[in-house]
Amino acid sequence: MKKIVVKFGGSNLRQPQDIDRVISVVQTYNRPLVLVVSAFFGITNTLIACVQNAKEGAGTKAALAESQDYTQHLRRLKREIIAANVSNPADRDRIEKALAVRIDQLDRYLTGIHCIGDVPTFVYDAILSYGERLSSLLLTEVLLTRGVPAREALPEDIGLITDGVFGNSACDFAASTASVAQALSGDEVIIVPGFYGIDKEGKATLFGRGGSDYSAASIACCICAESLDVWKDVDGFLSADPGAVSTPRSISQLNYLEAAELSYFGAKILHPRTVEPLFNQDIPIRILNITKPERGLQPYTVINAQRKVTKDVVKSVTSTEDVAILKLHGPGVGFKSGILAHVTNALDSNGINIKSVLTAQTAINILLARDHLDAAYAIVAEHHLAGVVEVSRNAEVAIVAVVGDGVLEASDVGSAIASRALSAAIASGVRVCLAAAGASEVAAYMLVHQDDCKLALQAVHAEFFGV
Amino acid sequence: MKKIVVKFGGSNLRQPQDIDRVISVVQTYNRPLVLVVSAFFGITNTLIACVQNAKEGAGTKAALAESQDYTQHLRRLKREIIAANVSNPADRDRIEKALAVRIDQLDRYLTGIHCIGDVPTFVYDAILSYGERLSSLLLTEVLLTRGVPAREALPEDIGLITDGVFGNSACDFAASTASVAQALSGDEVIIVPGFYGIDKEGKATLFGRGGSDYSAASIACCICAESLDVWKDVDGFLSADPGAVSTPRSISQLNYLEAAELSYFGAKILHPRTVEPLFNQDIPIRILNITKPERGLQPYTVINAQRKVTKDVVKSVTSTEDVAILKLHGPGVGFKSGILAHVTNALDSNGINIKSVLTAQTAINILLARDHLDAAYAIVAEHHLAGVVEVSRNAEVAIVAVVGDGVLEASDVGSAIASRALSAAIASGVRVCLAAAGASEVAAYMLVHQDDCKLALQAVHAEFFGV
Amino acid sequence: MKKIVVKFGGSNLRQPQDIDRVISVVQTYNRPLVLVVSAFFGITNTLIACVQNAKEGAGTKAALAESQDYTQHLRRLKREIIAANVSNPADRDRIEKALAVRIDQLDRYLTGIHCIGDVPTFVYDAILSYGERLSSLLLTEVLLTRGVPAREALPEDIGLITDGVFGNSACDFAASTASVAQALSGDEVIIVPGFYGIDKEGKATLFGRGGSDYSAASIACCICAESLDVWKDVDGFLSADPGAVSTPRSISQLNYLEAAELSYFGAKILHPRTVEPLFNQDIPIRILNITKPERGLQPYTVINAQRKVTKDVVKSVTSTEDVAILKLHGPGVGFKSGILAHVTNALDSNGINIKSVLTAQTAINILLARDHLDAAYAIVAEHHLAGVVEVSRNAEVAIVAVVGDGVLEASDVGSAIASRALSAAIASGVRVCLAAAGASEVAAYMLVHQDDCKLALQAVHAEFFGV
Amino acid sequence: MKKIVVKFGGSNLRQPQDIDRVISVVQTYNRPLVLVVSAFFGITNTLIACVQNAKEGAGTKAALAESQDYTQHLRRLKREIIAANVSNPADRDRIEKALAVRIDQLDRYLTGIHCIGDVPTFVYDAILSYGERLSSLLLTEVLLTRGVPAREALPEDIGLITDGVFGNSACDFAASTASVAQALSGDEVIIVPGFYGIDKEGKATLFGRGGSDYSAASIACCICAESLDVWKDVDGFLSADPGAVSTPRSISQLNYLEAAELSYFGAKILHPRTVEPLFNQDIPIRILNITKPERGLQPYTVINAQRKVTKDVVKSVTSTEDVAILKLHGPGVGFKSGILAHVTNALDSNGINIKSVLTAQTAINILLARDHLDAAYAIVAEHHLAGVVEVSRNAEVAIVAVVGDGVLEASDVGSAIASRALSAAIASGVRVCLAAAGASEVAAYMLVHQDDCKLALQAVHAEFFGV
Repeated sequence: MKKIVVKFGGSNLRQPQDIDRVISVVQTYNRPLVLVVSAFFGITNTLIACVQNAKEGAGTKAALAESQDYTQHLRRLKREIIAANVSNPADRDRIEKALAVRIDQLDRYLTGIHCIGDVPTFVYDAILSYGERLSSLLLTEVLLTRGVPAREALPEDIGLITDGVFGNSACDFAASTASVAQALSGDEVIIVPGFYGIDKEGKATLFGRGGSDYSAASIACCICAESLDVWKDVDGFLSADPGAVSTPRSISQLNYLEAAELSYFGAKILHPRTVEPLFNQDIPIRILNITKPERGLQPYTVINAQRKVTKDVVKSVTSTEDVAILKLHGPGVGFKSGILAHVTNALDSNGINIKSVLTAQTAINILLARDHLDAAYAIVAEHHLAGVVEVSRNAEVAIVAVVGDGVLEASDVGSAIASRALSAAIASGVRVCLAAAGASEVAAYMLVHQDDCKLALQAVHAEFFGV
Repeated sequence: MKKIVVKFGGSNLRQPQDIDRVISVVQTYNRPLVLVVSAFFGITNTLIACVQNAKEGAGTKAALAESQDYTQHLRRLKREIIAANVSNPADRDRIEKALAVRIDQLDRYLTGIHCIGDVPTFVYDAILSYGERLSSLLLTEVLLTRGVPAREALPEDIGLITDGVFGNSACDFAASTASVAQALSGDEVIIVPGFYGIDKEGKATLFGRGGSDYSAASIACCICAESLDVWKDVDGFLSADPGAVSTPRSISQLNYLEAAELSYFGAKILHPRTVEPLFNQDIPIRILNITKPERGLQPYTVINAQRKVTKDVVKSVTSTEDVAILKLHGPGVGFKSGILAHVTNALDSNGINIKSVLTAQTAINILLARDHLDAAYAIVAEHHLAGVVEVSRNAEVAIVAVVGDGVLEASDVGSAIASRALSAAIASGVRVCLAAAGASEVAAYMLVHQDDCKLALQAVHAEFFGV
Repeated sequence: MKKIVVKFGGSNLRQPQDIDRVISVVQTYNRPLVLVVSAFFGITNTLIACVQNAKEGAGTKAALAESQDYTQHLRRLKREIIAANVSNPADRDRIEKALAVRIDQLDRYLTGIHCIGDVPTFVYDAILSYGERLSSLLLTEVLLTRGVPAREALPEDIGLITDGVFGNSACDFAASTASVAQALSGDEVIIVPGFYGIDKEGKATLFGRGGSDYSAASIACCICAESLDVWKDVDGFLSADPGAVSTPRSISQLNYLEAAELSYFGAKILHPRTVEPLFNQDIPIRILNITKPERGLQPYTVINAQRKVTKDVVKSVTSTEDVAILKLHGPGVGFKSGILAHVTNALDSNGINIKSVLTAQTAINILLARDHLDAAYAIVAEHHLAGVVEVSRNAEVAIVAVVGDGVLEASDVGSAIASRALSAAIASGVRVCLAAAGASEVAAYMLVHQDDCKLALQAVHAEFFGV
Repeated sequence: MKKIVVKFGGSNLRQPQDIDRVISVVQTYNRPLVLVVSAFFGITNTLIACVQNAKEGAGTKAALAESQDYTQHLRRLKREIIAANVSNPADRDRIEKALAVRIDQLDRYLTGIHCIGDVPTFVYDAILSYGERLSSLLLTEVLLTRGVPAREALPEDIGLITDGVFGNSACDFAASTASVAQALSGDEVIIVPGFYGIDKEGKATLFGRGGSDYSAASIACCICAESLDVWKDVDGFLSADPGAVSTPRSISQLNYLEAAELSYFGAKILHPRTVEPLFNQDIPIRILNITKPERGLQPYTVINAQRKVTKDVVKSVTSTEDVAILKLHGPGVGFKSGILAHVTNALDSNGINIKSVLTAQTAINILLARDHLDAAYAIVAEHHLAGVVEVSRNAEVAIVAVVGDGVLEASDVGSAIASRALSAAIASGVRVCLAAAGASEVAAYMLVHQDDCKLALQAVHAEFFGV
């Protein structure tokens, strides 16, 4: 029988009592599972702050004390979770000791930064992996106290090998599949910490922010899982962010491409790369809501290979502000062979990832992660490209995207979905500075003034969903 | 007094009697001019066919005979023109002899191809320049017989130096400006053959198809001309191709960007790069109609630096079928750092010019000249890029573009211009596969099925111009 | 039975009556052969002069006349050869006509240059191949008139495919072996013109100056020949150039490495790359003297894989003046990682071949072909390499080399061969500026002042051979 | 008045009482000086071992204890030195406290390694710099207690900026000169720790093993010193290593090139790159012997720009075993354009420094640091270079070099110096596998079997010096 990979994110792990819910989900499955777990909510952010702090104050007693305060706080936190979830004092004691060993390791890394005064990339990745390592240990132990046969399996134990890129690695399936598949066989519940794999020397490398989804998808791929079940605390993918729109609808099905584009253009449900490992395997991703136990194992959204243009076409409207635009102006830049190649090459070799490029005869537009804008601007500016008369940049932008197979089809009112979206935004007074449809067959997006982002989302959502 | 550069294209030089019209235009100016002339209508195409023919049949008597037939035909043609334009027999004789020398040179190149069995790029460029060389000689001589002080100035004589790229060169202004400016001083009418400059060894290099406009613009830039006057046989830039739309309107003003985008997206009035040399000089381009002598020197369209969003916004709708799309599919291609750089680099270093790029998370779309599609496909296919699961190509597409400063502004019916264009096309049943707006601030375009191109043009034009 | 590939060079083809000698050699073999033939002596040089002439005077009647004079001269020359070798008038007539067709083709190429005013590389290679093409045709025809079953096989007919580098190509064995082997089967004598192969489009590409040896070796490799017999008019490899040394000895055996180094360092007997194709095949090369028919098929020198250090060690002393030295000075150039890589890369990508490199802490010495010195100097000078304080060049040098397996062994007088050579030169007053031994296990060389070259050769030869 | 830069190496700093000698040298000068000091003898090696140990045992208590033992040992050592050199208890106390602060910093780095489990390059460089930092602090303090006005100046304080290459950096003179010159003005004795500079972020970067000489030379260059005085415990440069030859002679003068080559080929007196910064400045380097106080400030060897070919020519014979040879064999590798460029490029981009290259037609010889041989072999092997039929390597070699301006001149016995050296070696039975002379105008070298290194040195030395 194929296994199911079940992923619990930080949103499922906020309170000590959340552990109970996780355990009851596991019991509902009543079959061998592989659990992939995130850090408790907020832990990763605090670890980042803590690393930054340790680096800046390196060598000062205050910074060292603060680091130690933080790990003390972690110890307390974990003790509370144990207290809330484990009644037997001997068990409590054993689990606390096991956690202490792990927090000591974390402590050591923080002390290391303090000692050497900087944060090598491998130390950064190692430290950030501790949020997940604590979750997996804790959950395993609690499951055992509840009589559920369980064992923890760390990426270093199961051979989840990556390409070795610190901070943003990808799984090396050729190196991982056989050993992961073998290590994850057995009938107990196996708990794997998400977010990281290991390079060929055994160092932890992160899969990028939110990378536990990617961990889970990689493992699902390695073991040919029946499905990847991702538990959230919302009703799956929605037609829009409920923070922006009052009553968004839930989406029952998405195909892989739609899910990838939605995530790329801002939906927070999945990490944008989650789909990658499963794409060719046709392993469905099922999104479930842990706060709705009455639904049992019935998912809100199922993501699979099934592509169909529905009558309504638009499945979701999404947005992100993590974007900025770099523009190269010149009367013939679209024609000058080589400018684009030169620029994309220079940006890539400086580690800057391009989100999208759009060219015309008189301008080349490059969309980037906002953090990279200034570096990208500096790189392009210093290259003095013949034919480029001006380089401009704008970070006060946001992307609003409409996703659904068939965005360029005629809708029931006779217009293309993409043009209805654009018209709706502009009619509401949204300042649009770029619009594109069909780049992926399932997505249309517009780049708007940052201040108009919510307005645009509401207008576009109202156009298609009436609210 | 600044000079005016006046350019006569092939459309002004169809019949022997067209010379008369050109001369009367020159006389209307009644001031020193620099004339830049194209080949007579059809000559360049015939030269291309002739070269191709000579190459394919190289070494056969038939091919040689055919080449000689062609140059005989040219001689006859020129003789007719002379007969129609020059009455004095002594003049006729002199002019015929001068032309014979030049046609002999052309003959020699064709014989050369025949002898060596292939067409080196420099020979190709040299042969194609003869269409213009014959025009300039002929026009100069006829002007002289009419008592107009005139002299011919070949690019090799005036030092119009290029970057040396055969077939698609650009002017090297640093090397050209001083010598061109000096060589073109004087009070007579100076006639320069368009379409080519010379590399540093003195070999002719073409400015690309339709490059006489670019010649004229380069010269205008070198001599700081008062304006560049381009004579056509139509009423300047129109709101659409009259072959597709029954009553297109004439456009009285365009800014440089609008003119560049219109040309890039298919308008045949100007070569797409004409604007480049003039952009920073603020030298206006004026489009006049030689068939309407009653208007005198009043242009139909003036192109200058003036940017304004008009109430109507849309100035013109245009289209081209010289486009094809190459698509790289993969669930994470938008995220994979480096794929885009790798591809653009590979295409560029193989001499393939990219017209536009549009990326999303799951696909990279590359628009190319149609001729380059298969080569581009082969290059991308052989690179086996990690993360690309499929490469597809489609040559059965056309671009329809809407040009006007402010394409993303709200129009009077409350929609963005771009979305009205898209909706109009889709409502007419046009199959759209890609749409983008704002890449240049003055242009929105859609990629449609080739068979729907005219339909799209009509629908979009009707939307904005009512017809 | 394996075939023998027999190569006749230009030195075997000086006079009309030389044909007789060639034919009698062929008859002596009395078995199926593949003959590879060079142009008649002097023809290639005249063709080069003729091409140069045609280019410089392109378009002038004088140059055209001169080209035609030359081909007339060729026709006369061939006619004399025919007259001297063929008695039957009908045969004469037929052969003359066949040759006329080929000379007409050559004529056409020369006319082509005249017409287009320049010499594309492919035309240069094509024209130079005609010296060989005439030899092979003539020899085939004469053999037939003598009753020897024979046929001509052109590289384009047998599929001798190259890497396509004009002027200096190499055989593409993967593409050639099968078709060459098949095309050269059969019992008649098959005559192949040397010096060129064809690229994938069918254009002739030369194997480099003296490349008929390389042609013959490539063919020998393709057909797994029993041996490659190279006929010369001297007694094989000698202990020194008889022009410099009064009584050099003949060398009965060389191994492949020794032959390669001797040719590299100036011996004119074989093209330096002849050994390449045969190296792994263990096909011997036998050098015979056509002027000594009394020896029959007994070679003067046999070149094979057999390596042995003889008592005398030194087999030959050779020299070349086609060398120059480029020197990069700087107190730490030997230590600066990357200078050497940078320089060799820059030279290579500009098509400059490095003969040898020798570095120390304070200088990098680069030996080059003399023609390339100035270009190399310019390239290095413009790179402004950090750490290089001076670049100097010297074309007034020559290389004198001592070749023999074991050059670093002790000789009978207790010194190393290499040091005896060096001492002998210096004791004679030779100005030596660089010396190296053991770079190849079979060669030691010294770089001397050009004016001392002959002196050095004599001194070194006397040291080892007593004369 | 120009200052003198005085450098004391580890050999001057072996025993506590050595400080006395250093101080009395300083007093002998009786003028403002800049002292550049190495670590005490053996300290750097122990730090390396300590780092390695900390890394390997990272996380174990044993390793941590060992690190702490080591720094305790350092503290004791320094206390002994203080005890031996400082009598006043208050002074002792103050100095001990100052040293304790610095050793605490070192301790922290070692703890850092222990904590993070690996050694980032910047930590490695930082730790190794502590040997010098302790010397400079100690020496400054002792000088002060002796009443000599003195102050310590760390590279980070004076702005000795490098190119930022950890482990093997070079001084960035453009960034350093002004600030170093200003910071080192003043009339007291200024003590600078050698061996490291700082990158633009302020991190310590080492100048390579033995780099204190280079530090001192860089500083001498920055301040336009009168001379650089390097104190050793031997009589300057000798005609050979006294370990190999019984009575080597002292050399009174060397020019920069000779000194650079001697160091490059194994002489341990100076770091090979010491000459670089001084070369263009004509600042002499004077080598003095601290164990011969009776000579006062009279140097044994002076190194300056003066080049002269002396009657004896040979100034010194030297050797090194830090060398290995990589050989690419193939019948035409010397001819194949690009193989050398390809190989040097691949080696350089993998951080492998080439000591020397020597090519012939049939082999390319690359001399490397012995540590790099296997990596270089692997790189070349995996490149599968067309034309290379075999790659071989040999680490059992040594270089023996003869240095002296004029190595290719005739010596008094009528032979070239270089050939006498080679003959002497071979006559003694030395197995020579490569020999080159004139690569630098001042050096000839031979590559011999490692076991014959001493024998070769003796034979060659005897040849020129009679002993």
